[in-house]
Amino acid sequence: MDAALALSARGKGLTAPNPNVGCVIVKHGRAIGRGWTQPGGRPHAEAMAMAQAGEAARGATAYVTLEPCAHESPRGPACAALLIAAGVAEAVIALTDPDPRTNGRGAAMLRDAGIAVTTGIREAGARTAMAGFLARQALGRPQVTLKLATTLDGQIALADGSSRWITGPEARAHAHLERARHEAILVGRGTFEADSPRLDVRLAGLEARSPRRILLTRGPAPQGWEALAGPAAIGALEGVDHLMVEGGAATAAAFLRADLVDRLLLYRAPILAGAGLAAIGDIGLGDLAHAHGKWTLADTRMLGSDRLEVYLRG
Amino acid sequence: MDAALALSARGKGLTAPNPNVGCVIVKHGRAIGRGWTQPGGRPHAEAMAMAQAGEAARGATAYVTLEPCAHESPRGPACAALLIAAGVAEAVIALTDPDPRTNGRGAAMLRDAGIAVTTGIREAGARTAMAGFLARQALGRPQVTLKLATTLDGQIALADGSSRWITGPEARAHAHLERARHEAILVGRGTFEADSPRLDVRLAGLEARSPRRILLTRGPAPQGWEALAGPAAIGALEGVDHLMVEGGAATAAAFLRADLVDRLLLYRAPILAGAGLAAIGDIGLGDLAHAHGKWTLADTRMLGSDRLEVYLRG
Repeated sequence: MDAALALSARGKGLTAPNPNVGCVIVKHGRAIGRGWTQPGGRPHAEAMAMAQAGEAARGATAYVTLEPCAHESPRGPACAALLIAAGVAEAVIALTDPDPRTNGRGAAMLRDAGIAVTTGIREAGARTAMAGFLARQALGRPQVTLKLATTLDGQIALADGSSRWITGPEARAHAHLERARHEAILVGRGTFEADSPRLDVRLAGLEARSPRRILLTRGPAPQGWEALAGPAAIGALEGVDHLMVEGGAATAAAFLRADLVDRLLLYRAPILAGAGLAAIGDIGLGDLAHAHGKWTLADTRMLGSDRLEVYLRG
Repeated sequence: MDAALALSARGKGLTAPNPNVGCVIVKHGRAIGRGWTQPGGRPHAEAMAMAQAGEAARGATAYVTLEPCAHESPRGPACAALLIAAGVAEAVIALTDPDPRTNGRGAAMLRDAGIAVTTGIREAGARTAMAGFLARQALGRPQVTLKLATTLDGQIALADGSSRWITGPEARAHAHLERARHEAILVGRGTFEADSPRLDVRLAGLEARSPRRILLTRGPAPQGWEALAGPAAIGALEGVDHLMVEGGAATAAAFLRADLVDRLLLYRAPILAGAGLAAIGDIGLGDLAHAHGKWTLADTRMLGSDRLEVYLRG
């Protein structure tokens, strides 16, 4: 299942409104098929993995990060039907599909066909891997990641606005990889006017994965950008299951005040800035006691001399 | 030598102007004597370890974090003479004593007496363990540690000044342990007036190790406090080889501007504050390029849900 979860990451930011599923077909202890949801949402992970496995799929075990879909569509058959037709003997599923068209019916189809079904294996990992799809299903909005690149003392720029560079090349490359895993990136008016950011993915081979650019503004969208009137409107961003908020302090505060941040991506350089520009504006916190218990460290690593910390809500 | 370095930590903040040395006597692979510089500076580590070893010291190996002293004093004999009289066969020394009364002469005395001497073993560890003594010898001032307890976004308090509590009980206990390892703690006028801090060590059994309290002020010292006119005057703090700067932002900035901070102690809670009070005031940084390369991460660990990071200059 860990291999299937790793495969699911390949589709992150590319499959909305479909989930980024991963699938591995195993027979006699060997992986004979690997698949992940392809860009645009089709083929599904199971279809790709089954195509690789071919006839050998008969009697094999399918590991899949999300319950195989039970609904046919004009774009392809139901994955549950595919697994049944191929003669798979066993299916191991991380997470039941919250989509009402499947939700338990995919597993039931498999069981009715005599396939042994286990669910709930590495469910927490699957929730993390497909958090964008799950946020869209449960909350009707994308998963929101707030990215901050700061000094040790929490500044995102000097008082004159200069921020090149706080973090080093490894951290900046990682941030570009994160961009490639989001359908859209959002900045505020101040960042747009000060930096005219390109917000593209500047990594060899991934240039085509530059996300849509969203400007937080009540005014019209500039050329090449989309306009969003406020954080509460993110649910209306069609085809966006992962939204990255990149700046600045007022925009970060607006999303935090609205309690619409699910994930913090903190890049911290081992430098001190002193009086500069703080990372986050007023979030209306009146009592420190209310600040606790909201964030859990999910990952931390060194990127060159900088440290990355990923915090998840809850 | 690692055991000797661990013993040397026991004297940290208690031995100035003497170094906090650690010593282990080993014979046939067994430690037969352990010593560390006692509060007030005497007995020396070697004297304590030799007293434990007794007659068994004959033919043993002495591991000592600093070159044994070559100079007798009214308070006791030279440690090099002690080791010679006890018949030690071998001495392993981490660091040559920079004190001009010994500087190489201790090791020479041992060699002249037929003892095998090795130096430079775990020298970097010894430099860290005895950094206060070494700063006093090399720079004529104490080692300065700047302690900050912040939110993820670098705030030390909300806008109304409230800072209870940002960090949790484990981090606060660790900060009290750090206090016990400093001869003196310094705060600025703002912190003094806002918080009337006790700056004592509130750990069972360590209450007596509360350090001297220094107020950064051009005015007179309040009852129970000492006054310091400015960061540049720290060299005049007699008996202080380790100085902890605890707050607030203007005081932190004053020490950083004067380039008088050797060690950063960052306690970070997994909370966001938004617009509050930044940890550090204006340090006169005009160009981000000048901020890089000054700090190296020396230690990091979780303390409850908070993270401690220790950065050293250079």
